[in-house]
Amino acid sequence: MIKTDIIIIGAGPTGLFTVFEAGLLKLKCHLIDALPQPGGQCSELYPKKPIYDIPGFPEILAGDLTKNLLEQGKQFEPGFTLGERAETVEKQEDGTFIVTTNKGTQHQAPVVAIASGLGSFEPRKPQLENLAKYEDKGVEYIIKEPEVYRDKDVVIAGGGDSALDWSIFLADVAKSVTLIHRRSEFRGHLDSVEKVQELKNAGKINLITPAEVTDIIGDGKVEAIEVKKKDEDAFILKTDHFIPLFGLSPKLGPIANWGLEIEKNAIKVNNALDYQTNIPGIFAIGDGNFYPGKLKLILCGFHEATIMCQAAYQIINPGKKYVLKYTTVSGIDGFDGSRKEAPKAVVQAIN
Amino acid sequence: MIKTDIIIIGAGPTGLFTVFEAGLLKLKCHLIDALPQPGGQCSELYPKKPIYDIPGFPEILAGDLTKNLLEQGKQFEPGFTLGERAETVEKQEDGTFIVTTNKGTQHQAPVVAIASGLGSFEPRKPQLENLAKYEDKGVEYIIKEPEVYRDKDVVIAGGGDSALDWSIFLADVAKSVTLIHRRSEFRGHLDSVEKVQELKNAGKINLITPAEVTDIIGDGKVEAIEVKKKDEDAFILKTDHFIPLFGLSPKLGPIANWGLEIEKNAIKVNNALDYQTNIPGIFAIGDGNFYPGKLKLILCGFHEATIMCQAAYQIINPGKKYVLKYTTVSGIDGFDGSRKEAPKAVVQAIN
Repeated sequence: MIKTDIIIIGAGPTGLFTVFEAGLLKLKCHLIDALPQPGGQCSELYPKKPIYDIPGFPEILAGDLTKNLLEQGKQFEPGFTLGERAETVEKQEDGTFIVTTNKGTQHQAPVVAIASGLGSFEPRKPQLENLAKYEDKGVEYIIKEPEVYRDKDVVIAGGGDSALDWSIFLADVAKSVTLIHRRSEFRGHLDSVEKVQELKNAGKINLITPAEVTDIIGDGKVEAIEVKKKDEDAFILKTDHFIPLFGLSPKLGPIANWGLEIEKNAIKVNNALDYQTNIPGIFAIGDGNFYPGKLKLILCGFHEATIMCQAAYQIINPGKKYVLKYTTVSGIDGFDGSRKEAPKAVVQAIN
Repeated sequence: MIKTDIIIIGAGPTGLFTVFEAGLLKLKCHLIDALPQPGGQCSELYPKKPIYDIPGFPEILAGDLTKNLLEQGKQFEPGFTLGERAETVEKQEDGTFIVTTNKGTQHQAPVVAIASGLGSFEPRKPQLENLAKYEDKGVEYIIKEPEVYRDKDVVIAGGGDSALDWSIFLADVAKSVTLIHRRSEFRGHLDSVEKVQELKNAGKINLITPAEVTDIIGDGKVEAIEVKKKDEDAFILKTDHFIPLFGLSPKLGPIANWGLEIEKNAIKVNNALDYQTNIPGIFAIGDGNFYPGKLKLILCGFHEATIMCQAAYQIINPGKKYVLKYTTVSGIDGFDGSRKEAPKAVVQAIN
């Protein structure tokens, strides 16, 4: 059982900034995210895209924003459960909550902050009848650990940046990489498209287009796939892995069953006070909450996280009064023993 | 008469970010500030101090935050009325407001956003009987234009960073610089204290400590001051300017008489909706507003500004529906004809 002060569901920008604000109040956080790395959409969907509306940054790449937020919170030593989806929440007699993931990992805390954005990212899957029985047995939708593919035959399907970038990366790792796309045209960064062309010319990527995977074959695990090229007969291709990278789409997922009031496909919160949901002790912040006038902007999530932490402090330290201290004046004491502070003015005689 | 969409009172971080958010909605802003430069407290009180709690910046100097916010908003071409204090507001029959400054400059707009922080910064003044009659006639509390002092005799009083830094700066501009402080010890950045010591040793700054200015003498303008050094007789010192730099303290000022509901020395707003005050069309955002759970943090001002701009849009474009567009997806069109956008993905065949 992982015990902490605030369980944060979702390690996107709002969740990451919560670590910092909670830390200022001496509260510890543990983040759960279905993706294999922190950053949420910013890391998974558009790490190289510039964002223009983060206050104080005329322009910042989404991946750099993630890096900065991790750096800003790191002295408060957040815990992470990554690659697992928060599945159930149970309120205990002592008022704490236990959140359990799809892999059975349990977390306990007096406060839960749902910062899950538009939801947990679920892969779009190809329409293949026997797909489910090969999942995690050669069929993967997200690449968590590239070493798994060393010296294996790998088939990647898809026509966007993920398919291009992983084909490039695995060309140096796998025994063979085959890229299958239903069109001849790929949509991605110019660099990536050109690099795949180059690797294809060098015989390091086997390209099959326009084509689709029409079946999976194997006894208990993927052993081959059936491929149908347009206007040609289907054929069988031996492979150890089949990785369809058709993009991710966010789903509210199991949180929909937690008894939270939902409006406009988001979790209704009290924005006049503290962004608490209808269940006391459970808050929703960032793109996944709803209130009148809500804007799904990262900067709004930052504010909501900050206000929410004050309410969390009251739950965890009942009756204790918290006086806001400015970091510019008081500095920051990290849980790791670090201290940040502004250079002090000297008082010195001039003679 | 200066006409605009949103009159912003206060050019601190919240006011500056409002320019950007309003610009995304194609609304123009004009800022009024009592200080001679934008940035509010960040520029005036602690430009060289690090701030640790701006989301995405593990550390940023307050002066750099101001620079970044100016840069972020500049394509939306904000107007500025600086060095003037907003004095009165009058609602017109057509629903617009006219805001007039202490110098008589008039501004007209359908929306007013008060982003004046803790108030307009008023200088702390020395207790001298005839001080008022020399104000702007040789007595200044804020240095707006250093060239005014070229080849003049200047007396600066004070013992902090402002007194030290302006003494250093004017040593190269004025005919003579005299620095008077009631103690021998100065409080400021080590660099500044050491530099003043050096200039004093080189005869470029005339230092009188511990001493106080006890009178001002002159016919219609400052011609000399009376100085009393501790345990010594007072003496007369000829000078063209007397600049007491005893710090600034924020005052709500004339806004207190605008008929706005005030609570805890701040302007009460509706945080459940749009940060509007009790006067429709007048909003209050940033450190100067009050609502339950209010935190006087820059990041909260950013959020409030963003939400407020949506309500301003509705007032200015009644009945028109605004659909939020993400800058990462849609890019930004500046009023100056500039365009910012993420590099587009290419669609390209691989053969």
